[in-house]
Amino acid sequence: MATVRFGVVGCGRIGKLHINNLINNVPGAEVIAAADPMLDKSGAREWLAERNITNVSTDYMDVINNPDVDAVMVCSSTDTHSIISLAAVKAGKHVFCEKPVDYDVDKIKAVMAAVDEAGVKFQVGFNRRFDHNHKAVADAVKDGSIGDPHIIIVSSRDPEPPPASYVAVSGGIFYDMMIHDFDMVRYVSGSEVVEVSAVGSCLVNPNLQEESGIPDVDTAVVTMKLANGAIAVINNSRQAVYGYDQRVEVFGSKGMASDGNDLVNTATVMTVDGAVSQKPLWFFLERYNTAFVEQVKCFVDSIVNDKPVVVGAVDGLKPVLIAAAATESCRNGGVYVKVAE
Amino acid sequence: MATVRFGVVGCGRIGKLHINNLINNVPGAEVIAAADPMLDKSGAREWLAERNITNVSTDYMDVINNPDVDAVMVCSSTDTHSIISLAAVKAGKHVFCEKPVDYDVDKIKAVMAAVDEAGVKFQVGFNRRFDHNHKAVADAVKDGSIGDPHIIIVSSRDPEPPPASYVAVSGGIFYDMMIHDFDMVRYVSGSEVVEVSAVGSCLVNPNLQEESGIPDVDTAVVTMKLANGAIAVINNSRQAVYGYDQRVEVFGSKGMASDGNDLVNTATVMTVDGAVSQKPLWFFLERYNTAFVEQVKCFVDSIVNDKPVVVGAVDGLKPVLIAAAATESCRNGGVYVKVAE
Amino acid sequence: MATVRFGVVGCGRIGKLHINNLINNVPGAEVIAAADPMLDKSGAREWLAERNITNVSTDYMDVINNPDVDAVMVCSSTDTHSIISLAAVKAGKHVFCEKPVDYDVDKIKAVMAAVDEAGVKFQVGFNRRFDHNHKAVADAVKDGSIGDPHIIIVSSRDPEPPPASYVAVSGGIFYDMMIHDFDMVRYVSGSEVVEVSAVGSCLVNPNLQEESGIPDVDTAVVTMKLANGAIAVINNSRQAVYGYDQRVEVFGSKGMASDGNDLVNTATVMTVDGAVSQKPLWFFLERYNTAFVEQVKCFVDSIVNDKPVVVGAVDGLKPVLIAAAATESCRNGGVYVKVAE
Amino acid sequence: MATVRFGVVGCGRIGKLHINNLINNVPGAEVIAAADPMLDKSGAREWLAERNITNVSTDYMDVINNPDVDAVMVCSSTDTHSIISLAAVKAGKHVFCEKPVDYDVDKIKAVMAAVDEAGVKFQVGFNRRFDHNHKAVADAVKDGSIGDPHIIIVSSRDPEPPPASYVAVSGGIFYDMMIHDFDMVRYVSGSEVVEVSAVGSCLVNPNLQEESGIPDVDTAVVTMKLANGAIAVINNSRQAVYGYDQRVEVFGSKGMASDGNDLVNTATVMTVDGAVSQKPLWFFLERYNTAFVEQVKCFVDSIVNDKPVVVGAVDGLKPVLIAAAATESCRNGGVYVKVAE
Repeated sequence: MATVRFGVVGCGRIGKLHINNLINNVPGAEVIAAADPMLDKSGAREWLAERNITNVSTDYMDVINNPDVDAVMVCSSTDTHSIISLAAVKAGKHVFCEKPVDYDVDKIKAVMAAVDEAGVKFQVGFNRRFDHNHKAVADAVKDGSIGDPHIIIVSSRDPEPPPASYVAVSGGIFYDMMIHDFDMVRYVSGSEVVEVSAVGSCLVNPNLQEESGIPDVDTAVVTMKLANGAIAVINNSRQAVYGYDQRVEVFGSKGMASDGNDLVNTATVMTVDGAVSQKPLWFFLERYNTAFVEQVKCFVDSIVNDKPVVVGAVDGLKPVLIAAAATESCRNGGVYVKVAE
Repeated sequence: MATVRFGVVGCGRIGKLHINNLINNVPGAEVIAAADPMLDKSGAREWLAERNITNVSTDYMDVINNPDVDAVMVCSSTDTHSIISLAAVKAGKHVFCEKPVDYDVDKIKAVMAAVDEAGVKFQVGFNRRFDHNHKAVADAVKDGSIGDPHIIIVSSRDPEPPPASYVAVSGGIFYDMMIHDFDMVRYVSGSEVVEVSAVGSCLVNPNLQEESGIPDVDTAVVTMKLANGAIAVINNSRQAVYGYDQRVEVFGSKGMASDGNDLVNTATVMTVDGAVSQKPLWFFLERYNTAFVEQVKCFVDSIVNDKPVVVGAVDGLKPVLIAAAATESCRNGGVYVKVAE
Repeated sequence: MATVRFGVVGCGRIGKLHINNLINNVPGAEVIAAADPMLDKSGAREWLAERNITNVSTDYMDVINNPDVDAVMVCSSTDTHSIISLAAVKAGKHVFCEKPVDYDVDKIKAVMAAVDEAGVKFQVGFNRRFDHNHKAVADAVKDGSIGDPHIIIVSSRDPEPPPASYVAVSGGIFYDMMIHDFDMVRYVSGSEVVEVSAVGSCLVNPNLQEESGIPDVDTAVVTMKLANGAIAVINNSRQAVYGYDQRVEVFGSKGMASDGNDLVNTATVMTVDGAVSQKPLWFFLERYNTAFVEQVKCFVDSIVNDKPVVVGAVDGLKPVLIAAAATESCRNGGVYVKVAE
Repeated sequence: MATVRFGVVGCGRIGKLHINNLINNVPGAEVIAAADPMLDKSGAREWLAERNITNVSTDYMDVINNPDVDAVMVCSSTDTHSIISLAAVKAGKHVFCEKPVDYDVDKIKAVMAAVDEAGVKFQVGFNRRFDHNHKAVADAVKDGSIGDPHIIIVSSRDPEPPPASYVAVSGGIFYDMMIHDFDMVRYVSGSEVVEVSAVGSCLVNPNLQEESGIPDVDTAVVTMKLANGAIAVINNSRQAVYGYDQRVEVFGSKGMASDGNDLVNTATVMTVDGAVSQKPLWFFLERYNTAFVEQVKCFVDSIVNDKPVVVGAVDGLKPVLIAAAATESCRNGGVYVKVAE
């Protein structure tokens, strides 16, 4: 198999995760260049050197212009995703872009147009589609095991809330957290979201709105009408004290497919006080550990064997459109809002 | 303990169920009289005679006017519940009334007023509050184990749809089916429903509306804002092919309480094709078998020990008010509708 | 369907259980007579009268000689089972005999011979064969789902130990407790036990041997070689503090069938401290509640429709032979002992 | 933290697994040398070069004599484990030795003596002690949660049998397979095995004895009396068609700790045919994936922080003594055999 040579832009937590995976866990991939504006201040240069990545820069264009780079992995700060993606695509590179591509619909569409024109592979980092549990649910829907989907329920709760300062710039819960779940609804239903109704409250942190300066919520329920007639519901909480709670259920005309959390271990201790078993894995790095690898393997496969990507630019666009509708609905008491096309 | 002497009005399926339970499974209860308009045509007279119940009539007033009767159990057709209850209460009898008390709010309020005046015990047959699983969830909320409730999810699906002719007179899914779930939300949350948004489709039977002659749905999702700030979601389907699916989940500031279905048995067969385990018990007679007994035991206890009933007339009223709001919301595309007080 | 008229001998706890079941839960059965030596001292006469059973006596021969009695249910003290069974069989009555028929092999064989001669139905009360969970495991073996059985594991633990005085006369753990499990091994394997090795200790009550006066143990593991080549293991404890632990696993050439305990309820409470779920139902009256009914329904069916009984006299004999071998093995350090035929 | 420089002897499947883990997953470890007699024929030289391991040899003494090597990892063929370990220990190297150290008790004792004299760390590769599930069971025993252990049950079944040629030289099921389970019994019980009784059959492959040329079995049950009075049972099968079945249960005076298999995923599909869920992970590379890493992390920690190893040479010796006793017992019809000290 040909080797895909990666240049990585952004060497923070997610960038390092991807680099380690590319080196150790993704056959046919190699990291030959990296860029990060904080290369020296953050210690990234040294970290990269330990992995024999010495072609490094503070300027991402050095990665993009590197003729030996086949694919650019965009792991920079969220507000730069679309800019860097666009530049890389225009330079003829395949791009793996962390989600979200952008919160601005026009900027995503600009990337989509450039991808079409350049004929490169462009994959968005919706890692949960590659989770062994969710994928098994989606597969059961796809292969017809449960018939036509009627009701979809996504429960998605973080173990601890981000700082209010993060929320202030993230666009709020529908953009920074539920965006994954909007993608999940599309993924497991195989259909598009037509209308959404969102309600929410500040139950985890009653002062969230003052602290973040935006009319956000930390507990939210969104109901969706899908194009295929099914109804989907997502519930989000910023804080499940027992850990990362990630479950999907699809109920249909022939049955139900559902999954549970991966637990810390399978042991149970049963005493006079009852049976105590384990909590879910703590957060996304633990739970989606292998999903992070799988998605990149899949991207490499798309490049090497010239297959369509599993999660394309349009999959980056749709959840943003849904998030916009949900945000509007929530700020208007839950009225149904049509999702833009 | 004093014995409570019951007169039963209505000897159809539910009436017979209650009579058998009163005789065999409820200590301190006795059935001394019964009435049913179809006493002879239906074979009820003979069925009752086999159980030594010979004081029988086609006129329910004979039961109500019987001075030896302490408590009347109203198991007649739905449209007569409030009339018979009212008469029995006015005659100074304790009343156990199958749900719904009525679909007409004024008629329920008339019963409530009469109960207050007569000072008798009046219990509504929301049997699910006495289910061992749901009760354990409610208890975990009440005892503070999971902190303040934030999100409540009730999944409630029947194994097979009723005939369209039933739907035509039942008032539709929010009145004849989800009414139990509205009660469940109030029960496990310990709070009141303030506003509801309902969406639904005819996914089980696309011809339901023509066949039933009412604008009903067979798949529905209702979102509720509760007085305590929590958000509740109910999903209903008229047909879960794998059996009666009855699950409740309450997520709160300190954790989550949830239950699962009772299964046909606990056996698992694991082969190269995977691990096959059992389906839920088929329908309410199997699943809520012991709950039917427990609720009547509790009613008898209220009478004998002069305790407040666990499920009173107001608990019969509130779900009807929520059902009215849900029906209105569903017919208006899911707009939020305030629940009347 | 013809009605089977029962006479019950022995009105202690198990006798009453059967009488209630015959009256309320077994269609086609009727209790018309009863006998108990302690009829008046124990309050049994009054208890029976409340159930309209007034043909009562302190002499079991009155039941056996009653020409209206079709079937005798033997619920007397263990040491009288075979005597009363023999008399009833000789009088031409069908007999349902609580286990064990006897601990004396010759006495059981005498009953077997009499049954053959009289041509009546004789069923032994091995209720666990009628448990919904164990039956599903046995059915999976019978229908070939798991192929040829290779390894059988029966875990059977009581919630609390009987008094040492009971053990003193019961014959010890292999006779009064594991006898059910020997039957279970035969039931789920469809094969016979050829040789046994038993080890045990007094871990629950270190003073058991002094207190009971017999060389018994309260924790025991028995390994068995079966005629079909499979190996079976039973483990018993007199005290599982978390409740009655009753599980069966059959591993075979094509897979594994296993069951779990029925739990108090299905609720789980998940907090920072883990997920707490329920314990097993406390003891046999709860766990085998429906099995007690099923076995008698089956017995009635055998009589009414002249079918072979599901658990015959030979099924009463075999476990006693295995218990004898296990007792001998345990007292000799675990040496393998052949089971007599 | 100081870096531990490893030299690896034996670059077959397990050697490569350890090398990859040392490079990628064990902080504070480095691989600086390797040896394998088939260095060139097997392609190992090239494989090592890709990982920048160029100090390689066909002679393991080159690794042992390398002054830069702190620790030797012995992954060579089983019959060379003790020889290479002994040489490495005598050269003052810390040693991580794959199990078994040897099947010859004297050779293991020679290693133990050398380790004592040299004062180096010596760890045996009983990886299952580091499995997240089994460790949680062992921890529950250690911390007193379940009181004194009374009954221990280890179920351990491989997905497919090894070739008869492997069995011919492995010493048979008690040496090559159950040896892990003997260690598990010691690990979770915290006690020593005093006597064993073993029975077995050739149920997976009826021709196993002819094919392997040794009186081996492929289905075995071993019962053990432990020094603390508890009774342990292990069951092994060479072929569980549904995958690697690895479960441990410890029942004690205050409760029970048990674990289940890690499954392929947590999804369940429920239809009219029942609920289908997943099989266990296929084999040890999948199931004990993280355990392989954890044990080496622990070894590195022992070296760097001069702590006692968790699994020492004596832990390599004891299971071999038990395997010898089990083999003898099995060949003598299950008679109890004392384990040598």
